Order: sequence, then C-alpha cells, then structure tokens
Amino acid sequence: MLKFTLGQVAQMLGGTVEGNPDAEVFTIAKIQEAQAGSIAFLANPKYEPYIYTTQATAVIVNQDFEPKQPLQTNLIRVKDAYLAFTQLLEQYQRLRQQAQQGIAPNAHIEESAQLGEGVYIGPFVYIGKNVRIGKQVKIYPHTFIGDNVSIDDHTVIYAGVKIYEGCVIGKHCVIHAGAVIGSEGFGFAPQEDGSYRPIPQVGIVHVEDHVRVGANTTIDRATLGKTLIKQGAKLDNLIQVAHNVTIGKHTVIAAQTGIAGSTEVGSYCMVGGQVGFVGHIKIADKTIIGAQSGILDSITEEGTKWQGSPAMPMSQYYRVQAVLRKLPELWRKLSK
Amino acid sequence: MLKFTLGQVAQMLGGTVEGNPDAEVFTIAKIQEAQAGSIAFLANPKYEPYIYTTQATAVIVNQDFEPKQPLQTNLIRVKDAYLAFTQLLEQYQRLRQQAQQGIAPNAHIEESAQLGEGVYIGPFVYIGKNVRIGKQVKIYPHTFIGDNVSIDDHTVIYAGVKIYEGCVIGKHCVIHAGAVIGSEGFGFAPQEDGSYRPIPQVGIVHVEDHVRVGANTTIDRATLGKTLIKQGAKLDNLIQVAHNVTIGKHTVIAAQTGIAGSTEVGSYCMVGGQVGFVGHIKIADKTIIGAQSGILDSITEEGTKWQGSPAMPMSQYYRVQAVLRKLPELWRKLSK
Amino acid sequence: MLKFTLGQVAQMLGGTVEGNPDAEVFTIAKIQEAQAGSIAFLANPKYEPYIYTTQATAVIVNQDFEPKQPLQTNLIRVKDAYLAFTQLLEQYQRLRQQAQQGIAPNAHIEESAQLGEGVYIGPFVYIGKNVRIGKQVKIYPHTFIGDNVSIDDHTVIYAGVKIYEGCVIGKHCVIHAGAVIGSEGFGFAPQEDGSYRPIPQVGIVHVEDHVRVGANTTIDRATLGKTLIKQGAKLDNLIQVAHNVTIGKHTVIAAQTGIAGSTEVGSYCMVGGQVGFVGHIKIADKTIIGAQSGILDSITEEGTKWQGSPAMPMSQYYRVQAVLRKLPELWRKLSK
Repeated sequence: MLKFTLGQVAQMLGGTVEGNPDAEVFTIAKIQEAQAGSIAFLANPKYEPYIYTTQATAVIVNQDFEPKQPLQTNLIRVKDAYLAFTQLLEQYQRLRQQAQQGIAPNAHIEESAQLGEGVYIGPFVYIGKNVRIGKQVKIYPHTFIGDNVSIDDHTVIYAGVKIYEGCVIGKHCVIHAGAVIGSEGFGFAPQEDGSYRPIPQVGIVHVEDHVRVGANTTIDRATLGKTLIKQGAKLDNLIQVAHNVTIGKHTVIAAQTGIAGSTEVGSYCMVGGQVGFVGHIKIADKTIIGAQSGILDSITEEGTKWQGSPAMPMSQYYRVQAVLRKLPELWRKLSK
Repeated sequence: MLKFTLGQVAQMLGGTVEGNPDAEVFTIAKIQEAQAGSIAFLANPKYEPYIYTTQATAVIVNQDFEPKQPLQTNLIRVKDAYLAFTQLLEQYQRLRQQAQQGIAPNAHIEESAQLGEGVYIGPFVYIGKNVRIGKQVKIYPHTFIGDNVSIDDHTVIYAGVKIYEGCVIGKHCVIHAGAVIGSEGFGFAPQEDGSYRPIPQVGIVHVEDHVRVGANTTIDRATLGKTLIKQGAKLDNLIQVAHNVTIGKHTVIAAQTGIAGSTEVGSYCMVGGQVGFVGHIKIADKTIIGAQSGILDSITEEGTKWQGSPAMPMSQYYRVQAVLRKLPELWRKLSK
Repeated sequence: MLKFTLGQVAQMLGGTVEGNPDAEVFTIAKIQEAQAGSIAFLANPKYEPYIYTTQATAVIVNQDFEPKQPLQTNLIRVKDAYLAFTQLLEQYQRLRQQAQQGIAPNAHIEESAQLGEGVYIGPFVYIGKNVRIGKQVKIYPHTFIGDNVSIDDHTVIYAGVKIYEGCVIGKHCVIHAGAVIGSEGFGFAPQEDGSYRPIPQVGIVHVEDHVRVGANTTIDRATLGKTLIKQGAKLDNLIQVAHNVTIGKHTVIAAQTGIAGSTEVGSYCMVGGQVGFVGHIKIADKTIIGAQSGILDSITEEGTKWQGSPAMPMSQYYRVQAVLRKLPELWRKLSK
C-alpha cells in the first residue's frame, strides 16, 4: 500500500501543513466518508460542515479557508484545493501503476518477440511470435497477445485481455480486463441446404493512440483490411464492435452499445449506453445519440441529436413520447 | 465423477430403497429424460406416466406412492419427494465443489498474501500483495486477484475472474467465470480541443456477503469511495455496473442490464434483463422493472412496477401498448 | 508470418502468373487499400480503376481480363477471380491455424484426461479430470476445461474460454475468446425473509457440431438436463443464453441478444442484435426477428417476421412506426 506523510503530500502539491506534518495517509476519500488514514478535500462550501466532524487524517483546503469551529483534522493549505486534489489523484494512480514492474519468469514469451524498455509483463502472460511491445508498456497477468501483434509505448493492458494475431495497438492506450480484440467477424455465407459456411476473416483490428477499451468489450477483426478505432476514442464496458467498423477520433461510447459490420461512426460523437447501430451506415461527426437508441440509417448532418428505437431527432422524440403517454386518453375520447 | 449406491442415497435422505440397494447412480435427471445411471424424482402426479417407462436407475417418490403398472426402476421412498430431491441437488453440488482442494504449485501467490484454512487455489491463479483470503474460499484457475484485495470465508470464485486492486468481497459469495470487479470507471473530463482526459478512479468495489455475480459481468470501481453491492444481491450474466453505483440488499437483476454511474438501486427490487438505468438516480425498495425498460428518473415510491423505454407505471404501459397497435387503424379513420 | 511466391499462389489456385512468379506476398487485402507485399482481387468491374494504381504485389483477375492502361502490379489469371480469392482466404486461414501445434509443457493437464491425435494445447491451459479431447482440437492459452468435459474432433477453442464441469462440445465448433460455457443458471428460490436461496444447477450445456460461439458470450448450464445449442447454430459476441434454453439447427443470432430460461428457439431462424426473449416460450422454425426486439410470447407459425419491443409482425410494426412519428401532429389537429 502507498503511504505518505502530510509533509510529503504538501511538498508534492506546493502547499503547507497546518497540524502534524509526520501524520501518515495511505488512501484518498470523500470528506463525508473519510476514515483515519485518508486524505480528503474541501472546495465547495456546501461540504464545509463535514470538515468539523470528518475522520480524515488531513483535508486539503484553499489558502484562505477560515474554520468557524475547532478542527480535529490536519489541514494542507494550497492555492486551489480542487485542482490540487485532482493532481493528487493522478499522482496516486501513477504511483500505483508504477508498482508493477519487471518481466515475470512464469510469463510465456516467444523468442522472436521484442520487448521495449521498462515493460511490465505479469505472470501467466502469453506473448506470441514476432510480437513487438513498446517502451513502458504494462501487461497484467493472464493476458494473451497473439503472433505478430504490436503494442506501442506506454499502453496498459489489464488482466485477461485477449488480442488475436496481427492486431495493432497504439501508444498510451488502456485496455481493461477481459476485453477481446481481433476475434473473427460474424460473417457467414448461406448454403443451399440452409446451413452457413464461415467467411474467412483475415483483416485486423487497429487501435490508435490514447484509446480506452472497457472491460469485457469485444472488437472483431475485419474480413479484409481493418476494424479501426481512431485516436482518443473511449469505449466503455461490454461494447460490441463488429468487423470493419470505424470509430472516429475522440468519440465516447457508453456501455453495452453494439455496432454492426462496416458502420462508420464519426469523430467527437457521444453515444449513450445500450445503443444499437445497424451495419453499413455512416454517422456524421459530433452526433449525440441517447441511450437505448436504435440507429437504422446514416446520419449525414454534423452535430445533431437523436433518440429512440428507431431513432428520431431528439426534439421530435420528446414530442412523440409526450403524446404517447396520452394515447389511452386519446383513444377513449375518440371512441365516444 | 461422483458415484453413490441407492442405499447411500436413501440413508442421506432418510428414506428406504425398494429394489436393489447396491445399484449405483452418478447423475441427477428429469424423470422424462433420465438415462441409466441417473436418479430422478416424482412429486407432481402429471409426470406419473413417465415412471413406468423411465430409464432412470432410481426414482425418489413419496412414501405413499402406489404404482398402477409394473415398474422397471428402483424406488427410494421418502416423506416429501420434492424436498428430498432438492436436498439431494444441494448435497450433489456441495460434494462436486469439495472435489477442488489444496493450493496448486503453479499458482502465483505473493509472499505477503494471507490464505485461510481449507482454501482451494487452482493452477495459474494470480494472488497479489497483501491479499487476504478467508477460510474455505475456492478460487478456480486463471483468476486474477489484485494487490490488497480481501475475500471473506466460504466464497467461490470461478475460472478467469479478475478482481482489481483493493476491492473487498464478502462471505459466501459466488463470482462466476470471466466477471470483472474493480475496473476503472468511465469518467473523462472534456478538454478544450475536444479530446478527453481520464479522471482517476481511486475508489473500490465492495461486494457484501451472499452476493452472486454472473459470468462476464463487469463492476467498475468508484471514482472515490465505493461501488457497493449489498448483502444477498443477485446479478445475472453480462451486467454492467458503473462507478459509485449502489445495489441494495437482496435485489435481483437479470442478464445484460446496465446501471450508469452513481445510481442507487434499492433493496428487494426485481429488475428484468436488458434494462438500462441512467446515472445519478435513486430507485425505491421493492421496485419491479420489466425487461428492456429504460429508467430515466428516480422512483420514489416503494413497491411500484415499471415497464417501457422510457419507463411508465406498468398498468399505463399496457394501456399505451394496446392503443399503439391500433394506431394505423386510428390514423385511417381520422384521415377520412 | 506466412509468405508465398506468386508462383506458389497460382499453383494453389490453378491459375497463371503474368509478371514475376518469384515475387512474394504475405498478406491479403482489398484492391483499394493494398500495400506492397499483399495480394488482392478484381472481380467487380466497378473496382477496375484501382488496378491501375494499386500498391498490391499481385491482383487475382478473371482469365479474360484486358487492362485498358499499363499495370504496375503482377496478375494471377484464374477462371473465376472471386471464387479463387475465397479459396485463397480459406487456405490462408487454415495455414494460420496450423501454425499452432503440440502440447505446451506449461499447460496443466490432469492425468486422467485423454487427448486425441494432433491436438494443440497452448500454454496455461487447464484441463481437468476425465476430460476427453478429440483429434486435431486446438485449445489456445488460458482456456479452462473443467472436469468431465468432452470436446470432439476439429474444434477450435480460442484464448481464455471457460468451460465448466461436465459440458459437451461437438465436432468442428469454434468458440471465441472469453466465452463462458456452463456457468450456473440464474435460479433462486425466494425465502420468507425476502432473501434468495440458490437452486442447484446440476445439468450441463451441450453444444452440437459446427456451432460457433462468439467472444465473451455466456451459456448457462441447465438446472437439470441440458442447455442445448443444436448443430450449425451461429452465436455472435456477448450473447446471453440462460439455463435450459434450446437453440435450433443453423439458427443465426447477432450480438448482445439475450434468451431467458427454458425458451426454445427453432431451427433456421435469424435473430438480430440486442433482442430479448422472455423465458418459457417457443419460437417456430425460420422465424426472422429484427434487432432490439422484445419477444414476449411464443411464435407458432413458421417463417414469420417480427420487430419491436414488444414485437409485432414486421409489416404491422412499420405501419405503427409511420403513424407514431405523426402523433404530435395528430394531437395538435385533434386539440383544435
């Protein structure tokens, strides 16, 4: 467990300790829930009452904070308490990840694989032939990296991720536990007897830089060419991305959404949870789509908002819903 | 495979054998599908015809059962056939799980981890630093237990589960294969250039006692504080639980439901499959929500029923649906 | 990486090289995206312009293809370019899979397990007691095969699949990464105090021949008897199949669909993505169900089409949707 004195924390944040600089903290908490050993912050005056009763070992406050009652907690005074707290969180997460280092002797790494400097390869990781792993990449236990995969610098791959043969992962990506990248696309040729013959799926998945893939999300490889997740896209958990899909730059997609084959989602889009896209359509940049929507057609105009299954422009959707609830009443009146 | 004589089964159930007490059974089946070597039961008279043709080696019947035709199967007579059968099932499952014992030499266990008495740690399990594992806990192969995790007595964790750093799992829980607990919540701060910066997620997931987590379900850790699954809650497969969600005591949630960030689901609720909850709402205790519903607002009254996307009170929903199907007719009439 | 000369490819396809037969190719691409080292095809005249600018090392064309401009790429002339290309894809995929061979020393295989000829068992695979693995079966790393499971000839199981105790997998199946087969069904008996007691789930999952199970899909074992996936059925990613469900022969189900307990889906059905089926219903053969539908009742007539939640006959659905969008207008008119 990470452990710091208040003196160390104050130095890190450019602040000053009011109280015991040798007191130790090892976790971060909300002021209203904090226990001994934790550090919290107070920025919003709404939460001020909690500072007089909190169990936190220390609270980060603005330089000009003036307590109106006696305090039992230590203070760390900084210029901007909220900003300092955010920095502390980021620092905490960075340190926590740095704890994982080295190459486990019980990982399986093919001889032809190339590993960059400063990598972490956990126990029971499988790394196939001709794999290239960049600098400072962290690969947690039970991850499968198929032959010819390449993973660029500073990417973090959590436990039990499976990346099939030949896929390409960019820099500074985060792939969460259980995600599957590069499984065969769902393509079958119907036969005369009603059975199906699989269509070989020999393309790849290409995940560009700064992409986030959520836990147990699945991204199928292309039939030919690539399924493409562009720079900065953020995918939540349990999302399905079918073969030959493209997801644009800095597009954010919430959990359990599914995107059928060959659809192109634009850049800077925001997609809610449990949305479904049919295949072979194209969604303009900056489109906003509400949760549980069903997108059956291309959206060609940038920056529009959609909702419903099948989806309508959001304003129309709300008008329709308003009337929908009155339908029984309408029917009664008309029946008379 | 487990194997018992009918004499042993009868003793276990406090019954008597009619037929060959040395006949052996090794599986449990429905009377209408049972093969040789299996044991079935007859409680509902509707199924009586099957007892005259069943291939089962034995059938558990009520003490007062009087066959109307000759039987080829052995009988085990007990006070209450249904109850006895249920006991047999529970006993069978218990024995099956007891088959797994000991600590595999090819598990990876950090020195600082503490293991309780009678644990099973399967091959290729990874157990991180300062992990505490309680008594009689069973951890199947390929499971990842991150640093500082604690797992309390009698919990069973099936193959390939991933539990991230710091999470807390209670007593008598069952976590099914592929579930992910403690992945980082989906929180990003939009930047001026349209990209997103991840917000550190330094909280945990706390799973209380007697909770069931389904296969490939994902539960994200809190940003700060905890994502909380309270005592006795039952989650089906492929469910998404976002950061800082609370799920109440003995609430049951069916497969593929998603709950967005900070939402609080009450106790004793029943939630159907593929339901979506938006974030930051509060659902009263004993609420019942039909499958595929979309819950956009807090539900404040206890014990109400909801359906639809967006959800309405269930009775209203059915009235609306009834009229909905007549809309084309209505339109035709009005157009005249 | 696989590598072939054009001479070898031409021989494989029964064609002739026009250009350099010693040129080497190591991947397959679309003509409009192909890079040096890849082979593409041209069958549809619409794509002819690309052949004059493609970077592909070779293009497969019909025997009678007559270029209208000078070419920089090599040609392989065959009878039917599209068919030859498909054969090439299948051959490529076959060779790629053949690359995986042998039994890894760091797999865990119980002594009582039986392995067929020509199997591949990857590193960190766990194979339990009395497991039977057929000929030419390929089991990728991190897969868990519980006690008493049987897997028949020529089946491929990708990384990190978990198959619980006692399940049966047929011949020529493909199970994608992260799929869970045989987890306990979601069955609980409500107790008087509002808590739930798990109902033991002692049945199995039986997957027949030529079935495809997608990445991170979950299939629960039966309470008693079997959850049955019949011959040739194709399941996409992230699908939920509950206990005691039956899926008919050559039925195709798209991603994220969920099927509740004991429901029987017929043969030759086509089911879209994100569909939900309630439990205990029966769907006739050749039924077609649109994406995001909710199926609440049995469908008894063969070959019908359904859409919507709750689902209606597809033609009715479209009529209802047409009017639905005009509801606000209708309301305005009627309000006058």
